[in-house]
Amino acid sequence: MTSAFSPTPADRFSFGLWTVGWLGKDQFGDPTRSPLDPVEALERLADLGAWGLTFHDDDLIPFGSSDAEREAILARFRKALESTGMTVPMITTNLFTHPVFKDGGFTANDREVRRYAIRKVARNLDLAAELGAKTFVAWGGREGAESGAAKDVRNALDRMKEAFDLLAEYVLEQGYDIRFAIEPKPNEPRGDILLPTVGHALSFIERLEHPELFGVNPEVGHEQMAGLNFTHGISQALWAGKLFHIDLNGQNSIKYDQDLRFGNGDLRQAFWLVDLLERAGYAGPRHFDFKPPRTEDYDGVWASAAGCMRNYLILKERAAAFRADPEVQEALRVAKVDELAQPTLGAGETLADLRNQQDTPTADELAERGCAFERLDQLAMDHLLAAR
Amino acid sequence: MTSAFSPTPADRFSFGLWTVGWLGKDQFGDPTRSPLDPVEALERLADLGAWGLTFHDDDLIPFGSSDAEREAILARFRKALESTGMTVPMITTNLFTHPVFKDGGFTANDREVRRYAIRKVARNLDLAAELGAKTFVAWGGREGAESGAAKDVRNALDRMKEAFDLLAEYVLEQGYDIRFAIEPKPNEPRGDILLPTVGHALSFIERLEHPELFGVNPEVGHEQMAGLNFTHGISQALWAGKLFHIDLNGQNSIKYDQDLRFGNGDLRQAFWLVDLLERAGYAGPRHFDFKPPRTEDYDGVWASAAGCMRNYLILKERAAAFRADPEVQEALRVAKVDELAQPTLGAGETLADLRNQQDTPTADELAERGCAFERLDQLAMDHLLAAR
Amino acid sequence: MTSAFSPTPADRFSFGLWTVGWLGKDQFGDPTRSPLDPVEALERLADLGAWGLTFHDDDLIPFGSSDAEREAILARFRKALESTGMTVPMITTNLFTHPVFKDGGFTANDREVRRYAIRKVARNLDLAAELGAKTFVAWGGREGAESGAAKDVRNALDRMKEAFDLLAEYVLEQGYDIRFAIEPKPNEPRGDILLPTVGHALSFIERLEHPELFGVNPEVGHEQMAGLNFTHGISQALWAGKLFHIDLNGQNSIKYDQDLRFGNGDLRQAFWLVDLLERAGYAGPRHFDFKPPRTEDYDGVWASAAGCMRNYLILKERAAAFRADPEVQEALRVAKVDELAQPTLGAGETLADLRNQQDTPTADELAERGCAFERLDQLAMDHLLAAR
Amino acid sequence: MTSAFSPTPADRFSFGLWTVGWLGKDQFGDPTRSPLDPVEALERLADLGAWGLTFHDDDLIPFGSSDAEREAILARFRKALESTGMTVPMITTNLFTHPVFKDGGFTANDREVRRYAIRKVARNLDLAAELGAKTFVAWGGREGAESGAAKDVRNALDRMKEAFDLLAEYVLEQGYDIRFAIEPKPNEPRGDILLPTVGHALSFIERLEHPELFGVNPEVGHEQMAGLNFTHGISQALWAGKLFHIDLNGQNSIKYDQDLRFGNGDLRQAFWLVDLLERAGYAGPRHFDFKPPRTEDYDGVWASAAGCMRNYLILKERAAAFRADPEVQEALRVAKVDELAQPTLGAGETLADLRNQQDTPTADELAERGCAFERLDQLAMDHLLAAR
Repeated sequence: MTSAFSPTPADRFSFGLWTVGWLGKDQFGDPTRSPLDPVEALERLADLGAWGLTFHDDDLIPFGSSDAEREAILARFRKALESTGMTVPMITTNLFTHPVFKDGGFTANDREVRRYAIRKVARNLDLAAELGAKTFVAWGGREGAESGAAKDVRNALDRMKEAFDLLAEYVLEQGYDIRFAIEPKPNEPRGDILLPTVGHALSFIERLEHPELFGVNPEVGHEQMAGLNFTHGISQALWAGKLFHIDLNGQNSIKYDQDLRFGNGDLRQAFWLVDLLERAGYAGPRHFDFKPPRTEDYDGVWASAAGCMRNYLILKERAAAFRADPEVQEALRVAKVDELAQPTLGAGETLADLRNQQDTPTADELAERGCAFERLDQLAMDHLLAAR
Repeated sequence: MTSAFSPTPADRFSFGLWTVGWLGKDQFGDPTRSPLDPVEALERLADLGAWGLTFHDDDLIPFGSSDAEREAILARFRKALESTGMTVPMITTNLFTHPVFKDGGFTANDREVRRYAIRKVARNLDLAAELGAKTFVAWGGREGAESGAAKDVRNALDRMKEAFDLLAEYVLEQGYDIRFAIEPKPNEPRGDILLPTVGHALSFIERLEHPELFGVNPEVGHEQMAGLNFTHGISQALWAGKLFHIDLNGQNSIKYDQDLRFGNGDLRQAFWLVDLLERAGYAGPRHFDFKPPRTEDYDGVWASAAGCMRNYLILKERAAAFRADPEVQEALRVAKVDELAQPTLGAGETLADLRNQQDTPTADELAERGCAFERLDQLAMDHLLAAR
Repeated sequence: MTSAFSPTPADRFSFGLWTVGWLGKDQFGDPTRSPLDPVEALERLADLGAWGLTFHDDDLIPFGSSDAEREAILARFRKALESTGMTVPMITTNLFTHPVFKDGGFTANDREVRRYAIRKVARNLDLAAELGAKTFVAWGGREGAESGAAKDVRNALDRMKEAFDLLAEYVLEQGYDIRFAIEPKPNEPRGDILLPTVGHALSFIERLEHPELFGVNPEVGHEQMAGLNFTHGISQALWAGKLFHIDLNGQNSIKYDQDLRFGNGDLRQAFWLVDLLERAGYAGPRHFDFKPPRTEDYDGVWASAAGCMRNYLILKERAAAFRADPEVQEALRVAKVDELAQPTLGAGETLADLRNQQDTPTADELAERGCAFERLDQLAMDHLLAAR
Repeated sequence: MTSAFSPTPADRFSFGLWTVGWLGKDQFGDPTRSPLDPVEALERLADLGAWGLTFHDDDLIPFGSSDAEREAILARFRKALESTGMTVPMITTNLFTHPVFKDGGFTANDREVRRYAIRKVARNLDLAAELGAKTFVAWGGREGAESGAAKDVRNALDRMKEAFDLLAEYVLEQGYDIRFAIEPKPNEPRGDILLPTVGHALSFIERLEHPELFGVNPEVGHEQMAGLNFTHGISQALWAGKLFHIDLNGQNSIKYDQDLRFGNGDLRQAFWLVDLLERAGYAGPRHFDFKPPRTEDYDGVWASAAGCMRNYLILKERAAAFRADPEVQEALRVAKVDELAQPTLGAGETLADLRNQQDTPTADELAERGCAFERLDQLAMDHLLAAR
């Protein structure tokens, strides 16, 4: 394979430990792979050119471990971090696997469950700080409902706000260099999950006590499960100054959460996404949150992980070539893409000035102008496919 | 039919003129009905028990009418308003039918189109003020794209903000008693529309210069076209203090925008929606934005309009009975629905206090507790179906 | 609750052992309930008024049991069948849980896996015959793919045909009174599953050696996961003479397979389904294939199971009332619903005769006629909601 | 652009007249383009390298034309066919635009409408024969319903069968060299359309009097509107010997019918589709049924049409390179893709023989084998993107 597409730590590719470590247990089937040692994960990913590893508390330290066990696990893990040069840019918490969270963590109807959840996350923030993670991802996968009377969503949002306000306060008190990234998802495992899209999460953040500490962690497949254009969602998150982290993977249309390797699924959308992230100067991790299909053994797992990074680099090269092509630049001008960056009113112009204008040109005259988007899109296709 | 379900103006039911007045022209077919006189619409709807009529500028006053034509139309319309006692609680603008808007209004790449759009909306605000409409709905149905390079969404959001800021300023200057309600939609007629969901619109509003003047106008089918739980979306809008208006209709699953009569489509969701609106004390219009199917003649149109109101009233009665039933109240207690309204921390309790607690009960013990949601949902079903 | 909605064995309600016995383990979470003894399942369901219990081989007899263990389990189970009076109207096979089936059973690329799968099903047919089950359901949940090169679907269909032809031959040779019901599903757990809809399965059956032995087992949620109208699908299956069995449950829109209790999900569709099954004289089991949400303890499980049956009976009563109402009958006539049952050509009329006719009435005249479907649908709504 | 991707008539690319001729009128907007002369369409498409033009009766000959007008139009059109060398490989009928068809053609409840529809199609078959079209496409876009009582689908299927049987008889009597291709679609413009998927249409055909005269005309976007894998559907149609024609275009996920240019939408799926069509030796037209977006003027229309053909040729080249690559061939072997072409039982082997085998290897041993699909899929990606 072309070396141009070989990743290095400078590319800032990170993986969830739960991705390459997924055993292949799904709703309808038992595990197809045996457990993966987190240290081996670090080593293999480092070999492949990755830069970071992320995890839920329970991925690294089994639920219910004693303090001594916890320390032993962490010591060994830290040593492997040093020897591989890998980083832990993000940590997240698991409020969904244990049956205690069957009705959610921060928004469980049962107040004692909520209290348990907050304690668990606070403990996990200490771990994040200890390992130098700068981003704390919060996916509230069980915060939701399957039926209407079971949950008053207004109360649930109050409780979610209460929890995040408390935890933000704690981070500030402790002086931790940590920001929260809320991860939206529309459904699965709950029938409907609270904060179902990037938009809902962005809006929620504005009502928190410390909104500056909160951003979003959008996942490709999660938005596409609602049929939404992922690049548009990322654009709005960037516009709001809130793209703190990103989960890259693949999804084919609206169905169950597929977590395919990045590049599988909607390939054109992946192209525009990489184009946007690179043009926008997004400086955070390129984090893969995928599941190597359970058809695969560990050779397949590593091939799948390598493919995620390779595909990102291919798309990055293609997007750059697209933007650098003079014919494309001309086509962008013809399509007036840049004209959208110009204010609609002139400097000093008022609405009254604008209204005093005659309708020149008229609506019918303006309507005659073609937008020239199809030619532009075909040029993009040609670059994506290296067909020029 | 039971008179208990006969609407009166006190129910605040309103209809878009474009709903009963839809001629049945669709993507694949020619009109099946002849034009409806707006004055007849007023009279028929008043007879059926409705309270308000709403419209796009172009619905009432054909695009391109002269000032004199405009005045004549308005005079006749005002007279009919008086004689019927109907109101105009909301006015909206059409930035989508004329080909000039093929690439959008406020976010068209072509700056002259954007200028044209802002002029058109400002003119329409004057009309809204003149007719006493308190809400101005803005549906940006053509603000979007079918391909990735055609639109930098970050610039588009800048332009949308510019337009709304200008118009808000104008409303304030003129002293109009008008608030804006942004109507989200994920797609159709554009491949992807900007501000695709309630969440995205709520978030966008927070970046405007006068956010207090802006709320949302969610439409049942629009959120359901993204597979989202409409009642959850309304809950979040209420939580944010931003439910300024609502569009009621029906939609079956994720597909083209169906605009079915209210009650058709997801009936259980309609039940929970009415339950929420009534419990939340939502005081705005119950506005129907539906399309009587093109299979219908005008008898069918009025039957369809009457059905919208009737179904709302049936659901309202059923929701009230559900909430009043002592067995339901007991089931809600058992399901700890009210416990979610209680803060997770006690008065004066700190996170440190919480963390110092032992895990009592333990996670495993908490997990033993059943949530009792199925019994509760069956009680709701029984009330919805009047089967108790 | 009204006793009119209390089920009896005459209603022929059956449940999968894997439904009330589901432990609540899902893609993202551990079990929330402890295992259920199959004999207890029989007893509880009998108490609730059910008539039959169905199961996968592995549900009753753990995968890998010895012959002696198998016999002991069966003896105890048979005794409970007798004491409860419950029946086993259907048996199905599990070709999806064990990791050996990760790429499918009958269509796994690995020929040895296919051979293993056929052996397993043949053994299971013997069990079905032994227990008197008349229907053998075949859900090929792992027959599919996540990527394009992995599977040549034409070859896969050849292999599926080979397997079913072999098994049909076996049933004929043994003289078993068993028919096969193929259960379609579009996706999950595979990215795409073969025979994704009722239509695809019906078509496949026509290419088998013994099509008369094969029908379909449509599941509400499976068709709705593809956005299809379930009642339409059942109508086509009935039209083809192929509705051998049915799986009743609930699903909200296009998303992961929810397996909600019957009545939850699309309630209007459930009404039309019951109306159709009862009018069509469908004589097979009313089989519930649902999952009591993992929020529930066993009280919730039984409440959920009882709700399935209750909702069917409520809908059955409402559909009967709808059909019996003279105003409905008149509305059906006006909407010309019965006219569709009349041949388009008269007795003895030829196409030439038809073409020789003038266009009287003309297309424009015919187009004037309203269809009167909205009034009819509102009458249905009124009956569904008992609002008349 | 690379000349390798320039189409010639040998590629058998055809276009609907209604595609490049679409004026841009949609559900929410007026036309953005002026009418296109069918002769100009022929000339421009011929210049671009196309081979065929197809049309609905009403596209070429306006609804309600007199016989003389009809002849004049046809004479001019035939002349242009000769001068351009273009062919008319397929003709289809319009049973959806005129309001007479608001409740369908062959399955309208109104018997007189059904009679009108059959007359119209018979007349159109004569035109097809006259112009040498070998395929007659039947898209029943209005055959469906928005509500449950309005249509008994079993009766509707009877009527559809009656119509097709009559028309098949007519084709046989006249000795026309014409076959029918039924085009499925799940919804839009009706809430649910009959024969919603390739599978449903294939199954329906088996119940016709002359099934040999009937096949399917699947459209990319139509199957994807149901979330189905288009290549799988085409595979099953080929397996059944029923792929008579194909409609190529693009669709992004489950939403309204987008009719994007081929290559837009799901690009990976388009790759596998071309790979399949070329490997399967599909000899029919490569027919584009797309809509140049209404943002475009006629320059954009022709750019969009050219893009359809170009993208097909790019994908064809890439698929061929993929299949020719020795590393791919090795990867296919490792993934046992060819093993699926081998019968599961050996020559002469019986089910009894198979059952007598020990389970060697055991299920657990078989489960250890990785499928190696991810490596294979990445190789496909590399070829699609020309990244090797």
